[in-house]
Formats: sequence, C-alpha cells, structure tokens
Amino acid sequence: ANIVILPGDGIGPEVTAAAVECLRAVAKNHGHDFQFAEHLLGGCAIDTEGTALPESTRAACLAADAVLLGAVGGPKWSDPKAKVRPEQGLLGLRATLGVFANLRPIKVHARAAALSPLKPERLAGVDILFVRELTGGVYFGEKTRTPEAASDLCRYSVIEIERVLRRAFEFAQARRRKLTSVDKANVMETSRLWRETAVRIAAEYPDVKLEHQLVDSMAMLLLTRPADYDVIVTENLFGDILTDEAAVLCGSLGLPPSASLGAGKVGLYEPIHGSAPDIVGQNKANPLGTIASAALLLRYSLNLEAEAQALEAAISATLDAGIFTPDLGGTYSTQQVTAAVLEQLQ
Amino acid sequence: ANIVILPGDGIGPEVTAAAVECLRAVAKNHGHDFQFAEHLLGGCAIDTEGTALPESTRAACLAADAVLLGAVGGPKWSDPKAKVRPEQGLLGLRATLGVFANLRPIKVHARAAALSPLKPERLAGVDILFVRELTGGVYFGEKTRTPEAASDLCRYSVIEIERVLRRAFEFAQARRRKLTSVDKANVMETSRLWRETAVRIAAEYPDVKLEHQLVDSMAMLLLTRPADYDVIVTENLFGDILTDEAAVLCGSLGLPPSASLGAGKVGLYEPIHGSAPDIVGQNKANPLGTIASAALLLRYSLNLEAEAQALEAAISATLDAGIFTPDLGGTYSTQQVTAAVLEQLQ
Ligand SMILES: CC(C)[C@H](C(=O)O)[C@@H](O)C(=O)O
Ligand SMILES: CC(C)[C@H](C(=O)O)[C@@H](O)C(=O)O
Repeated sequence: ANIVILPGDGIGPEVTAAAVECLRAVAKNHGHDFQFAEHLLGGCAIDTEGTALPESTRAACLAADAVLLGAVGGPKWSDPKAKVRPEQGLLGLRATLGVFANLRPIKVHARAAALSPLKPERLAGVDILFVRELTGGVYFGEKTRTPEAASDLCRYSVIEIERVLRRAFEFAQARRRKLTSVDKANVMETSRLWRETAVRIAAEYPDVKLEHQLVDSMAMLLLTRPADYDVIVTENLFGDILTDEAAVLCGSLGLPPSASLGAGKVGLYEPIHGSAPDIVGQNKANPLGTIASAALLLRYSLNLEAEAQALEAAISATLDAGIFTPDLGGTYSTQQVTAAVLEQLQ
Repeated sequence: ANIVILPGDGIGPEVTAAAVECLRAVAKNHGHDFQFAEHLLGGCAIDTEGTALPESTRAACLAADAVLLGAVGGPKWSDPKAKVRPEQGLLGLRATLGVFANLRPIKVHARAAALSPLKPERLAGVDILFVRELTGGVYFGEKTRTPEAASDLCRYSVIEIERVLRRAFEFAQARRRKLTSVDKANVMETSRLWRETAVRIAAEYPDVKLEHQLVDSMAMLLLTRPADYDVIVTENLFGDILTDEAAVLCGSLGLPPSASLGAGKVGLYEPIHGSAPDIVGQNKANPLGTIASAALLLRYSLNLEAEAQALEAAISATLDAGIFTPDLGGTYSTQQVTAAVLEQLQ
C-alpha cells in the first residue's frame, strides 16, 4: 500500500514519525508492504513553495491509498491579514480528496481519564463516535471583505447533508443504534434543512433511534450525560467545536484520532490536536493521537481490521502502564511512548 | 421604575413569577416604586396573536426601563417547517432593543458546584464574565432556501464589532484586566475582521491584557483551565455555544443569569436556560437564574447596586443552605426556593 505522509508544522513531524514507525512494525509483523512518501502541507509548504497545498502534494495524495497528516499552522503564519494561510492547505486537501465524513471516536481509557477535569463517575461507559461533515458549511462558503464589514456564507445542499447522514446512520447501525443529530434549527436555515433531511432519511434506517439536539444544549449534555450518546452527527463548524470539547473527556487533546472518509478510496487520517507550537522540538508531544489515527488508516483505507486492533491494543497497553507524555501529567518523551507502543506490538 | 415582564413559554411563567416576588420585596425593603406589566412573547404570542413579537409587546418594551424575560419555545412550535417560530420573537426583541452586548457571568457557588460534572479543584476561583455579541452574525444574516439547498449568512460590520469589544474592554478594566477574544480566524473572514479590530481597539485600553483563542480551543480551555479567564468576548453563535458549556461549571443550567445591554437605557434580562418543556407546571423549575437576572436588572438598568447585591446575597445564602431544586439534586420546589430567597431578603 502507498501511504502519503504529511508531517506539516509544529509537532507534526514528531508525531507522524512516531506513527510511521508503528506502521512499519505492523507491516513487518503481518507481512505487508507499505510504501511511505513524505510531502509538504501547510506552513512548511508556504515557506518553500509559496502555497499551502503544492500541486505535487495534491497529486501524490490523490494517487495514494491513504494520507496520514500531523498538523498544520503556527504563530509564524497567523497574521490575520496574511494572504496565504497553512489552514488553506488542509481545507484544500479535504476538498480535493472529497472526504466529507470526519470520524472522531471519543473513547475513554480509564487511566488517562483520571487526568480529565471531569469526575470519573461521569466518564464511565463513554463511547461516542462523532461524524463531522468536513467539506461544506462556513468553511467553504463565499467570503467577502470590505473596509467596513466581512461575511462568511454557510451553505449546505441536500446532497451534502444526505451523504454524511447516511454514513452516520450506517455507523449507528453497526454500534448501539442511537444517532444524535446536532443543529441550530431554531435559528439557522441550513440547520432546518439538516433536520428535515435527517427526519426523512431516518425512515430508511428504522433500526436506528434518531434524536435531535441544539448545538448549545449538546455542548452542555456532552459534559452532564456523555455516556448517553452513541453516534453524534453534525455540520462542519459545530463538529469542530464539539469534538474539541469532547476530547477533554479523554484526559488529553493528544489522544483522540480522526479519519476523514469520502466516496473514493483515499482516506485522510490526523490526530485532532493542532501543531502545538509551544512544545515543538522538545520530544514532549503525545504521539498516541497520530498512532491511533494510523490504526484507523489500517481499518478504513487498508481494510486490515486485525492489524488496526493490534495497534489499538498496543496503545491501550501503553496507557495501562502509565507511560504518559506531559499532556497526561507524565514525564515520558514522545520517543519513549512510541518505543513502548512498538514493544507492545512485538 | 417601569418593568416589563415577558413570562414566555414553558417554565417561563413560573420563574418570572418568582423573580417578580423578589423584586417586589426589594422595592418594599428599599422604598422603591416598581411597576410591572406583563406582555406576550414567543409561542404564547403565536397562539393568541399569530406572531411571536406582537406590536403591543414591542411598544411596551421600548417604553420600559427594563425587560425581564422567562424563556421562549417548546415542542409545540418546533416543526422545522413552521412559518412562525417563538425564537423569532426573542431575536426580534433583541434587535428592537438594540441590546448588542449580552453579559453572562459564570460564578461558581461552592455548594452548587459540587453538583457539577467537573472536579472541584478545577472550579476553584472560577469567575468569568462572558460578553456575547447579540444582535449580529448568523442570527441576523440573510437566509436562503430552495428545495436543493439552504444558506445562512454570517456578517459583521466593524461598527458592530467595535461597540461590543469596547464594552468588553470596559468590563475587563473594572475586573481583573484580562480579555480573551474568541474567534475562528483560521477559517472565517468575519473572525479575521473581529481579531484585527480587537488588536486595533486594544491600543485604547493599555491596562487590559488582550489574548485571542480559537473557538474550538476555547471549548476545551473552559474545562481544563476555567480559572484562567476573566472577561471572554465573542460573536453571537460562539457565545451561544460557549456560555451553555460554561454554565455546566456552575452545577446547573438553572443558575446563570444574563443581561443584554445596548446603547440605550432599556436592558433585557433573562436566565440562560430554556423553556424546559419536560418540567412545565410541576413547580420544579429552578427560579434562581431568573432571580439572579433580576439582580442584574437592578444593577444595570436601575442603577441600584446595593439592592442588586442584597438580592445576590440572598441567592447565595439560599444555596449555602442547600435549598436546591431537582436540577441541583434537591427536592425543594420553585416556590420553596423562592420563599427561602424572600426570607433572606428580610
Ligand atoms: C486547523 C483548522 C482549520 C481545523 C478545522 O477547524 O477544521 C482544525 O481545528 C480541525 O478541527 O481539524
Ligand atoms: C432561543 C435561542 C434563539 C437563544 C439563542 O440561541 O440565542 C438561546 O439559546 C439563548 O442563548 O438565549
């Protein structure tokens, strides 16, 4: 299999290097042939190519079986008046690959969860799969700017809503058969279309129980009753906010992985954390979110379920052993945590 | 003083009745003359007048010194295809009164906070004032709808951004002099305008330390480091989501109050909770959010600081005594909690 690695900016190179080591170990153990090719995306691409998503990166990703990304962005490229921004590379890549369904599983490992600001009794039994729409909404709508005002358009077509909802219904069918659709239907027209579409599509999935929540209520319910939720589906911006909030349940933003899937075969895999400019190059970054993303890559793009589970078990065993980077209150380095996962893979 | 009461829908009538009793007691104790006039807003107005914001309500509110609102909305009026919606009444009223700055103080009462899903050590010292922009953004932008698609426009003018930021800087000056401006400047043009404007205006408030956070990070930081924040200012939709999330810190959504202020004298006061259709008429609703909103009314619209503090002290003493409605895990009724506050006011 042909895997494109996009280290990106900040701690991106450190965490993708860790995940590649793990993927190599999996390939060796199970007799697979994985080819890795590194390409530029984000700030590093702006610095050397003048664009956040170089044509060579785009072509390589389109030709790959899967893409593993670290993170993009950082203070160096954060001037709000800048013409080119690292995030454009990421958004452009998501659009190029057509990966409209961003899966963000929120599972709570008991030892890591002890670090969460939430009380342990609230975290018992939490196992949520977020399905965030990733290629529409305000992220891709028309923007305007004059000296006096600015605007962003949030637009959704029925087709865009249907395809991500179907994906969410299907995941719910394979899990606990509860789907929570999050919107702001009391204010937004796109949300009303979203809700109507969800209600209509639900007829095709009679075995799934559909409920609706407003995004403001959901922000609260994620903390007060997190164990009540199975699959949560929502539009791009709400998903961005709610999944970062939900990541807190896991004890660290460094842990949750993500998989972005479309109609085609290429998937995009990235940890949900950012480029963490404050800890770059210090061998402190938590590699487990990226390694867990590599496990999702094995599952969804390479169809290697047993290998995915082996890697997930190795992550879990590393956490069981309390081998934590500083984000989890530990003193282990990125490399030590990676070595522990590799050892578990033996 | 001339106070308009808008009980609204669901538990609205129960909680506004409680707050009016408290305001009457304050008037009596301190020798003031408060006149109350009830008007229709929301679903109840749709049922009897066919519109969520009747002209008589609008006129009464514009002529008042202050407006105290319960809550609007409920399943009866929640069909996404409905032509008239209760929320339109609330949004129309906010626009009519021009109350662009929505203050939502998040203070943590120790006994109530014990009910919060957050660990007590995280809640120590939390004292946040949210300043949410209330009359712009996606709430008031143009909406479109065809059979195939829908859109919502998020638009902000420099003037709209400046006036709410100034209010936030002023509150920060009177508090701990830290202002956190929340946006999504890596994606939204309105956010980039927001951030640039904040940076420019900051020069006029050299004693205030301004920092920026992305809304997704803020959703996380509110849980991991809530005591680090003083004043948090943000646009309408982000404020909606983040303040509901932050309310969880208080132990119940039934506690936080809000005050919506504009350039004019009339303020709009409402608890941050909704109409809670599931507990209507059961004498179970927590009246303290509305009573605390009445305290803000005394402070901001009537300029009665001592009276506001007396009412806030009475609320605090009621919580100290563990006199809790079911949302806080107690067995006291709305009326019993109200009676306890009244007794404290003696
Ligand atoms: C970097 C940024 C554009 C991105 C987003 O908002 O989608 C990130 O926050 C994420 O969640 O992947
Ligand atoms: C009822 C609804 C329109 C309203 C809002 O979104 O502003 C409510 O959630 C609030 O926060 O006051």
